[in-house]
Amino acid sequence: MKPEVLLSRISVVLCRPSHPGNIGAAARAMKTMGLSDLRLVTPKQFPDPEADTRATGAVDLLANAKITTTLADALAGSVFAVAVSARQRDLGPAVGTPRETMARLLAAATQGTVALVFGNETVGLSNEEVLQCQAAVTIPTNPDFSSLNLGAAVQVLSYECRMAAFAGAAPLREQLTTPFTAPPATHDEIEGLYGHLEAVMTETGFFNPAQPGRLLPKLRRLFGRAELERDEVNILRGILASTQQRTGHGRKG
Amino acid sequence: MKPEVLLSRISVVLCRPSHPGNIGAAARAMKTMGLSDLRLVTPKQFPDPEADTRATGAVDLLANAKITTTLADALAGSVFAVAVSARQRDLGPAVGTPRETMARLLAAATQGTVALVFGNETVGLSNEEVLQCQAAVTIPTNPDFSSLNLGAAVQVLSYECRMAAFAGAAPLREQLTTPFTAPPATHDEIEGLYGHLEAVMTETGFFNPAQPGRLLPKLRRLFGRAELERDEVNILRGILASTQQRTGHGRKG
Repeated sequence: MKPEVLLSRISVVLCRPSHPGNIGAAARAMKTMGLSDLRLVTPKQFPDPEADTRATGAVDLLANAKITTTLADALAGSVFAVAVSARQRDLGPAVGTPRETMARLLAAATQGTVALVFGNETVGLSNEEVLQCQAAVTIPTNPDFSSLNLGAAVQVLSYECRMAAFAGAAPLREQLTTPFTAPPATHDEIEGLYGHLEAVMTETGFFNPAQPGRLLPKLRRLFGRAELERDEVNILRGILASTQQRTGHGRKG
Repeated sequence: MKPEVLLSRISVVLCRPSHPGNIGAAARAMKTMGLSDLRLVTPKQFPDPEADTRATGAVDLLANAKITTTLADALAGSVFAVAVSARQRDLGPAVGTPRETMARLLAAATQGTVALVFGNETVGLSNEEVLQCQAAVTIPTNPDFSSLNLGAAVQVLSYECRMAAFAGAAPLREQLTTPFTAPPATHDEIEGLYGHLEAVMTETGFFNPAQPGRLLPKLRRLFGRAELERDEVNILRGILASTQQRTGHGRKG
């Protein structure tokens, strides 16, 4: 697959950005590296002239930006999502370096649409948002001054995407992805599995929604690491449905 | 030599910058990656409040910036200088990639002070300025939109400097991640899970031992990829046991 096509499959998702100027800077950063799919989850102020100014020649990305109210909507259809996080979260996917993680992202892009998910300038991503992603990345910074601007973070990771897309021979990337013979599950399919699992655990009494504890995040962490295929989601949901038929819950057989 | 010391030996030289905001963005970008030595060759407007605003917590780099009237003065004492250029110049040093060139820069930094030289936002470096450098670097960009902001260019190259400086140090992964705090499941614990899963699937009728097909290998492949922890095996077996109690199979509650 051509590097340009792989890059076109990467969406950059900005969750709750506060400053329209940063949205513009992100668009410009993306376009310089050949990325084009910008998605905004409840931006505070958009569209905005300041965004257009900072985007300079990348206003087309702003005009085509998809705006959603939840991260789940922004990720619908994506086969792999990477959370950009300044720190390791409890139960979150293990954080990798930009280089190795963008290589994984590009490998996944051979299978479908993938996403790079950035949090708000001040508070970053919530734990719930991080847990919707299959991997996490931290940009190494000076521990005494780690205040990377949002546009700058988009620039560094878009640059690593371009380096990964053009690095090495295409055959090598295809070798990396051969273990996955079947199509990967999409974000919404995986969320469907989690919903089904939660329903069954609630029915059996294993899970108490009034006292959720850390059970659901732990299961997300486990299955997030596995990078589920569509076929596997279907198998797991088949097992869940079969237990429901026995207990009288769920769809009728 | 410690990575922090090597990074402190790199000066970023901005030649004739037009916009004070870009000087501030460059300072912030440098400081996030552990660089601190900013030099300005005949800046159009400096100091300036816009530079301070964009620098945020990196105003100390602005306060300490050395201002000169020629590039030669800014490079005095440097043992190696890299010109940042969007194109190969006639007679200029061959342009390299950021990764390989920043590795050369860091190697040279073990010998003394080194410099990264950026041109004016619109016209770049003059041929005479490029020829004062021993190497040149081009940041790969989208050929249809190569308009990298000056601050963004400083960010990408400062990031590569940091990556090169720490490349020989403790693996970044170890610095970044607290991998898996929980102990991994042992072989027999995982086999116990597979046995339990098979029993439940057989009880519900989802799995027919007389016609096993590829169901069990597929589940092994899935959970094998996940590299299960002991705690996770216990959770999964707890879910399985809870469905059995409902159906009247399994151990008595």
